[in-house]
Amino acid sequence: MNTQTLKGFRDFLPAEKLRRNWVQQKIVAAFELSGFLPLETPTLEYKEVIMGKYGEEADKLVYEFVDNGGREVALRYDQTVPLSRVVAENRFNIALPFRRYQIQNVFRADKPQKGRYREFTQCDIDIVGSASPLADAEILATTYQAFVNLGFTEVELRVNDRQVLLSTLSPFATDEVSVLQIIQSIDKLDKMTPADVSAELVDKGLSKESADAALEAVKQAQKSKNLAEIFSIAESLGVPAKALVFSPAIARGLDYYTGMIFEIVAPSFSSGSLGGGGRYDNLLNDLGGVDLPAVGVGLGFDRIVEAVDSLNLIVEDDILGAGVLVTVFAEEQQSISAAVTQQFRQAGISTELFNSTEKLAKQFKYANKLSIPWVVVVGPEEAEKGMVQLKNMTSGEQVTVSVDEAIATVQK
Amino acid sequence: MNTQTLKGFRDFLPAEKLRRNWVQQKIVAAFELSGFLPLETPTLEYKEVIMGKYGEEADKLVYEFVDNGGREVALRYDQTVPLSRVVAENRFNIALPFRRYQIQNVFRADKPQKGRYREFTQCDIDIVGSASPLADAEILATTYQAFVNLGFTEVELRVNDRQVLLSTLSPFATDEVSVLQIIQSIDKLDKMTPADVSAELVDKGLSKESADAALEAVKQAQKSKNLAEIFSIAESLGVPAKALVFSPAIARGLDYYTGMIFEIVAPSFSSGSLGGGGRYDNLLNDLGGVDLPAVGVGLGFDRIVEAVDSLNLIVEDDILGAGVLVTVFAEEQQSISAAVTQQFRQAGISTELFNSTEKLAKQFKYANKLSIPWVVVVGPEEAEKGMVQLKNMTSGEQVTVSVDEAIATVQK
Repeated sequence: MNTQTLKGFRDFLPAEKLRRNWVQQKIVAAFELSGFLPLETPTLEYKEVIMGKYGEEADKLVYEFVDNGGREVALRYDQTVPLSRVVAENRFNIALPFRRYQIQNVFRADKPQKGRYREFTQCDIDIVGSASPLADAEILATTYQAFVNLGFTEVELRVNDRQVLLSTLSPFATDEVSVLQIIQSIDKLDKMTPADVSAELVDKGLSKESADAALEAVKQAQKSKNLAEIFSIAESLGVPAKALVFSPAIARGLDYYTGMIFEIVAPSFSSGSLGGGGRYDNLLNDLGGVDLPAVGVGLGFDRIVEAVDSLNLIVEDDILGAGVLVTVFAEEQQSISAAVTQQFRQAGISTELFNSTEKLAKQFKYANKLSIPWVVVVGPEEAEKGMVQLKNMTSGEQVTVSVDEAIATVQK
Repeated sequence: MNTQTLKGFRDFLPAEKLRRNWVQQKIVAAFELSGFLPLETPTLEYKEVIMGKYGEEADKLVYEFVDNGGREVALRYDQTVPLSRVVAENRFNIALPFRRYQIQNVFRADKPQKGRYREFTQCDIDIVGSASPLADAEILATTYQAFVNLGFTEVELRVNDRQVLLSTLSPFATDEVSVLQIIQSIDKLDKMTPADVSAELVDKGLSKESADAALEAVKQAQKSKNLAEIFSIAESLGVPAKALVFSPAIARGLDYYTGMIFEIVAPSFSSGSLGGGGRYDNLLNDLGGVDLPAVGVGLGFDRIVEAVDSLNLIVEDDILGAGVLVTVFAEEQQSISAAVTQQFRQAGISTELFNSTEKLAKQFKYANKLSIPWVVVVGPEEAEKGMVQLKNMTSGEQVTVSVDEAIATVQK
């Protein structure tokens, strides 16, 4: 049998899945603290719902096929298109603003490479139906809280305003070089030197003077009144001023943003983005025919897991599997081991009963391999006296105590 | 734009998704209390991994296609085949017994009908690598705990032994009617009268005497020594004796079971099964070429949600979205409303800031629609005195208090 996964697709074995669950729970806790509500949409949609929404390049990456009933269908490509479909379909019975979070896997038939997968998890929050800076600020504050929950001590929200960018750079556009083309080059200032960006603009057709002037104009750009208001509300919502970084060169690739745009960076991890978002007041109309403003963020779950691992942010005690392994001394002892297991469980302690009657040494080896911190042995002698042996697998210390005492020790 | 979902596929809007999350969390808590660890496998697999595993009928229900790179691929059909692939691929580095839970969506191109969907959630636990009754009992006890967590006051595990069934019914098999065909009819005793089952057996080719004798033999069948041992361990693991019902007519459709088999029934909800499982000692060898015994259960998530709803088991206080809505009196007040919101959130209270500056009446209507139990108003007068108005949306009572007092009131 072929035991391979498809390229770009992954199994998450328990040790890794526990870490991913920890990260996801911290993010969800931030979303729910801000009162965002969960939404789930199908993995498969009509192809016409998915295709033609983000341009030709994106369409090529959609997994699409004809199903057993002859319907043209496609796999979820992102969570914004399904959101706009849901809003369009339920526009008469959802309360506005509609605030939802959505954490599901999406599929891209992209070239797999380090850190890029064909099935990956997206964590989105969006607010539909409000054009107010209150909504922009709420997205920033909730995003910031997610990183606080994850234990990041410094995270920057690098914020810009699409309108500022457009008005700053429009004067440099020519018949040959559109303002969007200029923006695309400016967006690379986090990865390239100003000289290289200038050279790229010259390659595109700007004069050297014009290219340098464009760069200087971006450097000198001032926060818009809109951004100042958003920053002020975000600070009231608990985002420290130093985490809100006005970044006039941030452009975000996607053309559909209309107002505030931002990226999340943890400088101690990398200069790369851990996610980003912004305001997109026309997209829902374009996608679903419902004219509602919207603002949101998408967190790059895999990048965040990478950052969390690299910065050692996971509280290892949180991601234990079982806290206790109750071993089985011999077949005649299995019911007493089961009863002891149940006592630990009733005390709320995640407890595994070793599900086989192998040699004790093998059972201890198993506890070691799974990093289970406590092992209980109920030999015939202890059983008679209502006692158990409790071994601390970290210190190696072993004591003979009553089950109640053992439970109390583990709970400490 | 087409705003429809595909037939048999569903959106879960927040009100329903919150309920489903509640059910899932209760189930996961039971799995984790018993020390089962999470596993995730890809949505897409090589077609050859999925097809030909469960017979021709099942193959017809597999969603399969050729991907953009020309690979033959298929959507997840169940969680047992991926489990066997994972075990085969990682056989040299996983500790045995391998105990995992897996909660993911699966896909069947089946005829959609009431309660049957093309994408639905499966909740599985399995123990791979132990032939001991300890493992069978652990599956029963963990299953039972999941229903206790969900608030079921009576749930029956109807248990049988495939070997008992085979040895009881083999004497009635003929050249024309195989023992499996007899078992298939016997399995219908929960839905059909004995007379009808007897008639069906006669239709298949048994004599009337033989059919009746087979029914009588099943009725008289005795618990095997294996089942007695499993029941005894399960009782030590906390399953009350009355919940363990020896049911000699239970057959379970799938041919791959080799030992204990069981179904979960909540009689106060319906006689139908909420899930089931059993021991399958040959399947992993057949599927993945790794000769390991296994036992497990699959919970029917949608049926359980239905039962939980019908029996009113959800603790409604648990599934609130936001606990508090902080309204925005006017644009000039928005930052003070944001600051009050942040105070509630820092106290750990899920709090929504109304993300727009609409009329207060509309903001209250919104709180009503979303069943948010507390609404805070920060008018200019209150703001000046450092006070807020706190309205209990259930009683209608409204008080003017400090933010700290408001937080204390909500926390009660």
